Formats: sequence, structure tokens, C-alpha cells
Amino acid sequence: MSGKAFQDYFPDHLCHCYGCGRLNEHGLQIKSYWDGQDAVCTFNPKPYHIAVPGYVYGGLIASIFDCHCCCTASAAAYRAEGRAMGTEPLVVFLTASLHVDYLRPVPLGMPLVIRASVNEMKGRKAMVTATLSAEGEECARSNVVVVRAPQHLMPR
Amino acid sequence: MSGKAFQDYFPDHLCHCYGCGRLNEHGLQIKSYWDGQDAVCTFNPKPYHIAVPGYVYGGLIASIFDCHCCCTASAAAYRAEGRAMGTEPLVVFLTASLHVDYLRPVPLGMPLVIRASVNEMKGRKAMVTATLSAEGEECARSNVVVVRAPQHLMPR
Repeated sequence: MSGKAFQDYFPDHLCHCYGCGRLNEHGLQIKSYWDGQDAVCTFNPKPYHIAVPGYVYGGLIASIFDCHCCCTASAAAYRAEGRAMGTEPLVVFLTASLHVDYLRPVPLGMPLVIRASVNEMKGRKAMVTATLSAEGEECARSNVVVVRAPQHLMPR
Repeated sequence: MSGKAFQDYFPDHLCHCYGCGRLNEHGLQIKSYWDGQDAVCTFNPKPYHIAVPGYVYGGLIASIFDCHCCCTASAAAYRAEGRAMGTEPLVVFLTASLHVDYLRPVPLGMPLVIRASVNEMKGRKAMVTATLSAEGEECARSNVVVVRAPQHLMPR
């Protein structure tokens, strides 16, 4: 993917998230983009993102689902409001609950493709589902409930 | 806590897990210990384990629950079999599903205490529940379903 990712539109002071903050040099710095109605993220785990030999750590998978789904909800909210990302007011979602089903071990050493879509957006809450695939094979699924961050959690 | 943690009993080739492997220099290296029927893990997030300013990243929380619950299931299996950890045959659990409820934002800059207990162990599967607290206040809960790792995932 090229162009600006969802994460590139957030203001600097909110860009230190370990999962998706572009300014967190220790973090995963995942990037999410629209692909039709879905949002897609491609991530290349590092060799040290290991569980048992040869396979990706499940906590990393949960982390990618978490951030990708939060950012997808944000992008979807802007889209629903007919606004470009980066315009005011800022819309940031935080995770209320995260569920991951690990369907099969995820092989280490290849890109992972995570696709998410917003199933429902109601009031301050959104339900997002996602899948993670390696070489075209689905390895994990996630359901994430996210809520719009209250203003006091987003200091300027 | 002092003495050997659950994770210290696994053989070297299985000690590279990003969450709990003692030989993964990039990883979290969490440590789990018995405290009666519960297993407890205390973790100090690094400043870069951040979400929004002042709060801990949710993916880190999911990761700690994941590893702490898997290792607790392993320790419980040894205990149920009346064997010391580290004796053969090796018992390793992998995550089948992970559910996390984020009850309130988790403050950054203090130790987090994660307590887990095995609710049910049946055949190759175990159900583990856990809580995460900061300064005595419960901030997150988790339900984790784990399964005994098949032999082909644990090369010697």
C-alpha cells in the first residue's frame, strides 16, 4: 500500500502507541489502509516475535488486531461523517474488549495480512471483526469492541 | 517473589517466546509463581509500552494475560500429576482463544499484578481466568482457553 495510512493522520501527541504510533521507535508501527469496505494491514514480524520455534507469538497477533481494529473504527467514523481523516473533531477509539481465536499456528518469516471491517457502529461504540492470514491461509480471527475515547484521555 | 519461576523450568529451545522466554533479549520475560491456588505475575511496563499518554498499551496487557495463563496451565498440570516442573514428559500449553475485557485505563509507571487460576482442565484443554490490577484496583480481566501443544510443535 502507498499513501498515508490511517495512523498518519493522528496528531503527534497521540502517535506514541506501542502498536501503531509512528513516533514510538520501540513499537510495532503498524499501518492500516482502506481496501474497499475492508481495512488492510500487512505486518512482517521480526525473528524475535516468536512463540515456539518457527511460529509467531500470539500476543503480537492480539496486539495487531487491537490497533488495526481501533484505527479501522476511527477511519470508518470519519467516512460515515463524510469527513477526511485529520479534520476536527478528532475521533480516537479505545478497546473495550478483545477476543482472538487462534485457528492454527502462524508461521514466522513471512508477511501477515490482517483485514478488518466494522460490523456495527452505534453511539460511541463500534464492533469490528478481523482475520489474519499467512500465505492466503486464515490463521486467526478477532472480534473487537471499541469505544470513542473520552476527551480527558486525549490531552492536547 | 523469589526462587524459580514457572518459565525457568522449560528447556532452552522453548525459552525464546517473546512474552515469557528467558532467552529472548527483546521480549517481555514475564515470570509466574504460585501463590496458593493462584499464580501471580508482577510486571513493570516500560515507558514505551504506552497507548494514549499516561496509560498502558492494551496489546501488552493481552500479551501478559496470554503467557501468564499458558504457563499457569502448565504448572497446574504438573501439580495435578504430582510431578515437579522440569520433569518429563514436558507439558506446554498454547493459546486457543484469548478474551480480554478492559475495565478501565491502566496507568503507566507502576507495577501491574496479574493473578490467574485454572477453572477447568479436561483432556488436552484448560480454561484459565485472570485479572490485572494496578495499585490494588482491578483494570482488566481475561478468559483464556489453552491446549497442550502437540509434539510436532515442540522440536528438541
